Amino acid sequence: MSSFGQLFKITTFGESHCDSVGVIVENMIPKVQLDLVYIQKQLNRRRPGQSHITTSRAEPDTLELLSGMERGMTLGTPLAFRVENRDTRPGDYKFDENEYLPRPSHADMTYIWKYGIHSASGGGRSSARETVGRVIGGSIADQILGNCNCRVVAFVSQVGNIRLNVSRKDMLALTRDFIDTFVTRCPNGAADKRIESLILKLKKKGDSVGGKVTCIVTAPPKGLGEPVFNKTEALLAHAMLSIPATKGFEIGSGFGCIQQTGSEHNDPWITDNSGNIRTLTNNSGGTLGGITNGEPIIFSVAFKPPATIKMDQNTVNLKGEYRRIKAKGRHDPCVVARAVPIVEAMASLVLVDLIYQHRSRLTL
Amino acid sequence: MSSFGQLFKITTFGESHCDSVGVIVENMIPKVQLDLVYIQKQLNRRRPGQSHITTSRAEPDTLELLSGMERGMTLGTPLAFRVENRDTRPGDYKFDENEYLPRPSHADMTYIWKYGIHSASGGGRSSARETVGRVIGGSIADQILGNCNCRVVAFVSQVGNIRLNVSRKDMLALTRDFIDTFVTRCPNGAADKRIESLILKLKKKGDSVGGKVTCIVTAPPKGLGEPVFNKTEALLAHAMLSIPATKGFEIGSGFGCIQQTGSEHNDPWITDNSGNIRTLTNNSGGTLGGITNGEPIIFSVAFKPPATIKMDQNTVNLKGEYRRIKAKGRHDPCVVARAVPIVEAMASLVLVDLIYQHRSRLTL
Amino acid sequence: MSSFGQLFKITTFGESHCDSVGVIVENMIPKVQLDLVYIQKQLNRRRPGQSHITTSRAEPDTLELLSGMERGMTLGTPLAFRVENRDTRPGDYKFDENEYLPRPSHADMTYIWKYGIHSASGGGRSSARETVGRVIGGSIADQILGNCNCRVVAFVSQVGNIRLNVSRKDMLALTRDFIDTFVTRCPNGAADKRIESLILKLKKKGDSVGGKVTCIVTAPPKGLGEPVFNKTEALLAHAMLSIPATKGFEIGSGFGCIQQTGSEHNDPWITDNSGNIRTLTNNSGGTLGGITNGEPIIFSVAFKPPATIKMDQNTVNLKGEYRRIKAKGRHDPCVVARAVPIVEAMASLVLVDLIYQHRSRLTL
Amino acid sequence: MSSFGQLFKITTFGESHCDSVGVIVENMIPKVQLDLVYIQKQLNRRRPGQSHITTSRAEPDTLELLSGMERGMTLGTPLAFRVENRDTRPGDYKFDENEYLPRPSHADMTYIWKYGIHSASGGGRSSARETVGRVIGGSIADQILGNCNCRVVAFVSQVGNIRLNVSRKDMLALTRDFIDTFVTRCPNGAADKRIESLILKLKKKGDSVGGKVTCIVTAPPKGLGEPVFNKTEALLAHAMLSIPATKGFEIGSGFGCIQQTGSEHNDPWITDNSGNIRTLTNNSGGTLGGITNGEPIIFSVAFKPPATIKMDQNTVNLKGEYRRIKAKGRHDPCVVARAVPIVEAMASLVLVDLIYQHRSRLTL
Repeated sequence: MSSFGQLFKITTFGESHCDSVGVIVENMIPKVQLDLVYIQKQLNRRRPGQSHITTSRAEPDTLELLSGMERGMTLGTPLAFRVENRDTRPGDYKFDENEYLPRPSHADMTYIWKYGIHSASGGGRSSARETVGRVIGGSIADQILGNCNCRVVAFVSQVGNIRLNVSRKDMLALTRDFIDTFVTRCPNGAADKRIESLILKLKKKGDSVGGKVTCIVTAPPKGLGEPVFNKTEALLAHAMLSIPATKGFEIGSGFGCIQQTGSEHNDPWITDNSGNIRTLTNNSGGTLGGITNGEPIIFSVAFKPPATIKMDQNTVNLKGEYRRIKAKGRHDPCVVARAVPIVEAMASLVLVDLIYQHRSRLTL
Repeated sequence: MSSFGQLFKITTFGESHCDSVGVIVENMIPKVQLDLVYIQKQLNRRRPGQSHITTSRAEPDTLELLSGMERGMTLGTPLAFRVENRDTRPGDYKFDENEYLPRPSHADMTYIWKYGIHSASGGGRSSARETVGRVIGGSIADQILGNCNCRVVAFVSQVGNIRLNVSRKDMLALTRDFIDTFVTRCPNGAADKRIESLILKLKKKGDSVGGKVTCIVTAPPKGLGEPVFNKTEALLAHAMLSIPATKGFEIGSGFGCIQQTGSEHNDPWITDNSGNIRTLTNNSGGTLGGITNGEPIIFSVAFKPPATIKMDQNTVNLKGEYRRIKAKGRHDPCVVARAVPIVEAMASLVLVDLIYQHRSRLTL
Repeated sequence: MSSFGQLFKITTFGESHCDSVGVIVENMIPKVQLDLVYIQKQLNRRRPGQSHITTSRAEPDTLELLSGMERGMTLGTPLAFRVENRDTRPGDYKFDENEYLPRPSHADMTYIWKYGIHSASGGGRSSARETVGRVIGGSIADQILGNCNCRVVAFVSQVGNIRLNVSRKDMLALTRDFIDTFVTRCPNGAADKRIESLILKLKKKGDSVGGKVTCIVTAPPKGLGEPVFNKTEALLAHAMLSIPATKGFEIGSGFGCIQQTGSEHNDPWITDNSGNIRTLTNNSGGTLGGITNGEPIIFSVAFKPPATIKMDQNTVNLKGEYRRIKAKGRHDPCVVARAVPIVEAMASLVLVDLIYQHRSRLTL
Repeated sequence: MSSFGQLFKITTFGESHCDSVGVIVENMIPKVQLDLVYIQKQLNRRRPGQSHITTSRAEPDTLELLSGMERGMTLGTPLAFRVENRDTRPGDYKFDENEYLPRPSHADMTYIWKYGIHSASGGGRSSARETVGRVIGGSIADQILGNCNCRVVAFVSQVGNIRLNVSRKDMLALTRDFIDTFVTRCPNGAADKRIESLILKLKKKGDSVGGKVTCIVTAPPKGLGEPVFNKTEALLAHAMLSIPATKGFEIGSGFGCIQQTGSEHNDPWITDNSGNIRTLTNNSGGTLGGITNGEPIIFSVAFKPPATIKMDQNTVNLKGEYRRIKAKGRHDPCVVARAVPIVEAMASLVLVDLIYQHRSRLTL
């Protein structure tokens, strides 16, 4: 399915080398001045070719509005957007059943098994190019969250074995603009440099490396999340694991909780200086019983090393005969820098949809 | 929302201390001899009071069929089941707005914030008692998977810092019956003993501890998963993070992938002895591009230490005034042993729903 | 699918002769004093055996609450209800593949074609007994509508060729209690008598007759309906045609509009004495572009003559050999009197779900 | 909501005067040679300006494929299509809150009440221009039905008081091509002429008239329809009442059943010459218990006279002050001829979605 969300819903379309990619966003609040420049800015943050550590595919990714607005205002009707695919190189990819070599750890083979056919041109629908529509949808969701004073900010917290340690207080102060001043989107001068050189070293070898993106949602409205199956963390996990190349999700204490005792892990209730009921610690990561408690929502996502490497690899052809394969195409040696706006977009979509669901249950 | 699944769908009901908990299972294959004894057996594996390391709440959890079968056969109509709550102790829990003390890291406070009301009687809907309905649904799904020769087996792979290391080959040989011979459901004599004594030690102190459940799906059908939003791992992550007390999900290499390079992580395509196209390694954990590749699906779930501990803790009352709280009620010092059948159930539900979705797209 | 509604959602279960029928109602507003006596009263209005013109099947239809309430208040969690099947006579119905005779214009044959199996016991899931769950759900929805001063009232407007003509003004004054004073639920003394004797005459002959139910929703909130596919009339039509034995739906001018010109049919905008913008006429039946305009929603539903007649009929056995069949079982010679509360229930469910959807789209 | 269908799903976008209208079609069968010329042909049948009895708005309605196909084959990924709006005349429509006059029986006022804003340019989203996306989706569904030898054909059966009487046998022989040889799409020379002159007479007066479209589905697969809420007729009714300007739906005997007795209405089971179990008559209209019985599905839809008439009418401005209004814009004096392909499209979408749902429930 290419739709995400119950009420605030996106439906994306497009393969990596077809006419265009895009999205329909349903149920936007009507009569809102929608900031298209902001959406384009988020698209630029996802854009390939934005720096020397990303793929060289040159896509302007220019936003084109097809419907849903008039005189700068949303009409409450579906917002449709299209972004042309410009720098397609169908020649880089061919589809000849006799010669076709599925790339290791790519979706080529599973698409063929599932659909009996696969886009000749690169990743097709499995390409991260599809996420253009998600970033557009998320940017629109951001404009609703902004009005609630809720902010979604993601950053690179690890690449290879280079980890960023950041205190909860520092994390709360992070902004997208500040993070964007680092080429790797790891918001620490030293770590940024080390990650950059690791990536460049691997790029030179034709290899790639994994990474981690951490996301913090500050000041989320209390009471979001729909037990028992649409808990906030369940929807976030769904959203994150739907992003290409993801292998894990954790919230709050995450996998670290396994080694903790209850007396260490429990977050005591306190009253803060303004008289608000809060928690002292935040091992819960912002939700209890799947419902937001007003504390920052903090989660991380693991991204595998990109499968496309410019090194000889073993594979088989569709008849099962052994062959050697070496990637052509253009790809990122590490995806996390460009994954940052995608993680943010998916988180914003989840939150706005939960806000809608929560508000629907009117008081009598 | 209390429904899970698009086509093979469950809708659960019930709080920890109301009349009963249960489930409606929609869209079961008709004219199937349904094994109710098998369902009861899975319920027994989830049941409280099944051993000295679990809660002492004594619930027989007897399955009662309300509709959907006749002469032992499914009718294709909704299967409804009810399990009575017997050992309820409303007296253990009171609700007086002036005296009410929300328990740290429980959902008491967030339910009050969301709904303006909370079950006076224990966890209410946030209690794991709700998972009775999931286990029933999953047991029915198992009977479909069994016919595809696909098997879902989960086990405890870590508690505190006691980890089980198990080879892929050994993992493939595991069965639910074998795992059940270990009181902790950690299928290794030494580890089982160490975990048991750790849990008993913590139980004595009134404390609790986290743990990890690993699940392996052997011989899943190829081609399952619905890009781009309903990838297999996305639905599994959603399913797992909807289980109470979960903090993380990882598939295949999981968070370990962050430190790997592409040349290490990629799973080369090979041809096995029977001439089938397979992968040499399985860092992918059984899916590529969100679609199953026929390799075992292997994933893990992190469970936090139970929030209920019999130690004095800080909290506030609903006016925000500081208070001390000490748990009454009856609870598990570690949830993972009983979480095993719940993880299995949710995995089975995801797989059968994906099988249905995949089969719906008929060939012309 | 046995679920209806996006947000305010019911899921029903049960066949005509299994243990019980019932419903799960999701997303009820929390902390509401729910009037169970009112729900039982609506069930009684649907109950078989309530008068000499309905089936003699004697079912007390006693409401049993399984979950979702505490101390008389809704918890915001799923409300589950069960109603036992008492007066089942499995002996009236047998299932022997060699002897089985599908009843003309019943769902026996199509259930066998679809599912390969059919409840031996009467209509099974296709029986109107399933509507018990709908009436429970609708009665809960009523309590939300009541708070908006919106009222849903249905009545019998035609049986055979006996029609009730009722002015718009008189229709607005109708109440459920008043209508219930007529045994046929046709709220006019003369028409009621004529319909009663028609039904009794046909009952004696073992025949049956069709009828029409008209429903009026007074003071619906303005702005309900979700273009373009979930227009108010589209959801109402869906809801009504999902009721057993229905053959048609019309709203406002209905099929009469075919013979009208635009200049006759258009409803001019006016300002009423209180300064509210209204329409002079209401050919639109309360919606424009699928969105409620605040005028009464008026629609009608056609019910076919019950298929069960105590007369010899032609049919074939499952091998296609000609046979004669004569109904046993107990049935209504005309369903419309008992259909009234079902039509009301489905209308209430649609309206509350639309209210939820409309409120979800918060203002910034 | 702008999505229709559970599995074979369309999501439409676009207003009458924005950049473009279009649709995303999800879950098309992969590896199918899709006939785009056929889709364009259906669009042409819906196109404004196709004859002297329709609106003079000149739209080429040229189909533009954005994604989902390669080398003429479907990829199984979302098919996205766009059709530019060319002949927009924003000047015909203005939006000035002080001068704005809602048109009687149009959706202008209800959109303003619902959304607080309305497209300045004509009907906006409530315009039938939105149905372009439905016809594209339906044309794709047709290609699946064609493979099942199932055919969907609609025609005009009444305009004003001019009715077409057509026998069941003649109805079964109708084809879209034959119907298109009549300018009114009423497939009878005499009736066609009478309707044409009625429409031209009303066009001259600036008035409009209602009409009826009847649709026949020949050779539908048996066993379609998902009780209890997604019965075939329930989904068809939903689909039809979501088309602009519709006021009623009936299937089989329809509202006529009210005056029938059971002994007249029941369809006896017979065995036909090929040994198939069929029904002698078809008052049921092709479904029993909501499930197709293999007989032709026959239903009708009532369309109101278009609200746009070139005559002076009473209305009020947004302050509630009385005003006179006379339509500018370009509109159809009767919509049924152009509604024919829209009814067909919605019927095809319903059927394919039901085929998908039915096939999903695999046999063990």
